[in-house]
Amino acid sequence: MDWKAEIAAAAERSTAYVQRTPVMRSAVLWEHPVDLKLEHLQHTGSFKARGAFNTLLSLPVPGAGVVAASGGNHGAAVAYAATRLGYRAQIFVPEIAGTAKIALIERTGAALTVVPGEYANALEQARAYEAETGAMQVHAYDAVPTLAGQGTLMREWEQQGLAADTVLIAVGGGGLIGGALGWLQGARRVVAVEPQQARTLDAALQAGAPVDVEVSGVAANALGARRIGSLCFGLAQRHLARRVTVTDAAIVEAQRALWQAHRLLVEPAGATALAALRSGAIAPSRASAWPCCSAAAISPPTRSPEPAAFF
Amino acid sequence: MDWKAEIAAAAERSTAYVQRTPVMRSAVLWEHPVDLKLEHLQHTGSFKARGAFNTLLSLPVPGAGVVAASGGNHGAAVAYAATRLGYRAQIFVPEIAGTAKIALIERTGAALTVVPGEYANALEQARAYEAETGAMQVHAYDAVPTLAGQGTLMREWEQQGLAADTVLIAVGGGGLIGGALGWLQGARRVVAVEPQQARTLDAALQAGAPVDVEVSGVAANALGARRIGSLCFGLAQRHLARRVTVTDAAIVEAQRALWQAHRLLVEPAGATALAALRSGAIAPSRASAWPCCSAAAISPPTRSPEPAAFF
Repeated sequence: MDWKAEIAAAAERSTAYVQRTPVMRSAVLWEHPVDLKLEHLQHTGSFKARGAFNTLLSLPVPGAGVVAASGGNHGAAVAYAATRLGYRAQIFVPEIAGTAKIALIERTGAALTVVPGEYANALEQARAYEAETGAMQVHAYDAVPTLAGQGTLMREWEQQGLAADTVLIAVGGGGLIGGALGWLQGARRVVAVEPQQARTLDAALQAGAPVDVEVSGVAANALGARRIGSLCFGLAQRHLARRVTVTDAAIVEAQRALWQAHRLLVEPAGATALAALRSGAIAPSRASAWPCCSAAAISPPTRSPEPAAFF
Repeated sequence: MDWKAEIAAAAERSTAYVQRTPVMRSAVLWEHPVDLKLEHLQHTGSFKARGAFNTLLSLPVPGAGVVAASGGNHGAAVAYAATRLGYRAQIFVPEIAGTAKIALIERTGAALTVVPGEYANALEQARAYEAETGAMQVHAYDAVPTLAGQGTLMREWEQQGLAADTVLIAVGGGGLIGGALGWLQGARRVVAVEPQQARTLDAALQAGAPVDVEVSGVAANALGARRIGSLCFGLAQRHLARRVTVTDAAIVEAQRALWQAHRLLVEPAGATALAALRSGAIAPSRASAWPCCSAAAISPPTRSPEPAAFF
């Protein structure tokens, strides 16, 4: 697989639809400067829009459109990309997703069915709909067009002048870090950061293959895939420099720091990479070869309500 | 007054302290692309930090340090800049400022006195403190070092590749737009945007001199100066291209759009410039000379509580 070519093609075909998100250097979040990619300003609030657009722009979409079972970032991204491109979209949202994320998906214009109970119930309905109508499912992280789309983030960051030699990325199913590894291929040190209660990549690398893990904790609604994607796993075996885990307390501390220092309001998953720096899981190298560190994977406040009190 | 030289010197002396804030182009906020300067990510959440740092770095600060009466962006910026530079800072905050802003000032490490009642009570105490101790007041908008500091925003934006020929800026006391006019001096069309219930610049230009106006409305806590600054007034007479007003409803609509489209959480003052575009107060020119429009003056959610439910 020529990931660099796949990612360049993804960037080319989706550039008119994907938000070029700003970057920012902070001198106060860590003892060294930290570069941030403000990807939570992406359409629907996360990098997932990149993979969704690339998938729908590169694969044939059936007349029945697309279907997803999700109350999370992926579902919102698929709903947004499909409706923006003029396709039908049917999203089955588990009731537990909460009103804020349901409202976000509603605003895209996609057809939305709120399913009582847990995620599994929504997934069951989505599969039945897929079988009945022939609608297409967009994979959340373990498909080439998805990974190539997420890879455009790192390509874009390099175009914006990224100077850091080390890049920290939070890991759930592995779509974002997989795309970054596919683009960089060892050109920078990529560090995987996982919540201690959702270590899919760590478990897979220890076991020698993707395995199911129990997931929980504050970031689970965004990083709570049960198993690392096989594409990401292969790329991580070849190119990952290091992996670390962080506690929920460290994630919440980093989340608060982003708000207090820079008024950046992100969900726990969006603060997970930074948590590795602030908690000391990653120490600055004594060598000047580590002039600054970069934390990607800033995501939206999916768990937070719309700031109703504010409006 | 050589404003370009003042602003260049301000940028030089404060570059180590001021956050270089990111810029972003949105294709979905208006019928044409809109460039945004995300100045709400500045230290303490507004451009006021620029003027505060430049003032404290260019004027002699007495041993008693600095004093301010403010529960708003200026007070937080002065508190932050003073403590960061190692000066004593005493801030008198009116009780009505609310817990979020009081907490923001507290976190800077400045000495803080919460004064019961209205702003006037806090101001009275600040003046008494100034007379007693010899501490210095930093002007909020009508002083050369303040205006020159705010002018660094537009200089920085040009360095970041600003392409727009028209720049919209919200106006309160006139510090930000005054600095921008001083830097640009007619090189781009600068449009002043004022809330209908806080039209200090409009009233002054009609009267031929700064005059007191009644202020109220959703943006009054940040744009509610009673009278435009004389420095800004002079610059506006020479260089302002146009001025428009927007309703409170239009400001709230723009504020909500920034949140829903891009997860940008700003106070009403930070959405006021954009409101001029979305409400139709500024129509796109038919000529291609108006390829995109830029709304500066994105400020922080001062009136909103800390998102306690989120953490």
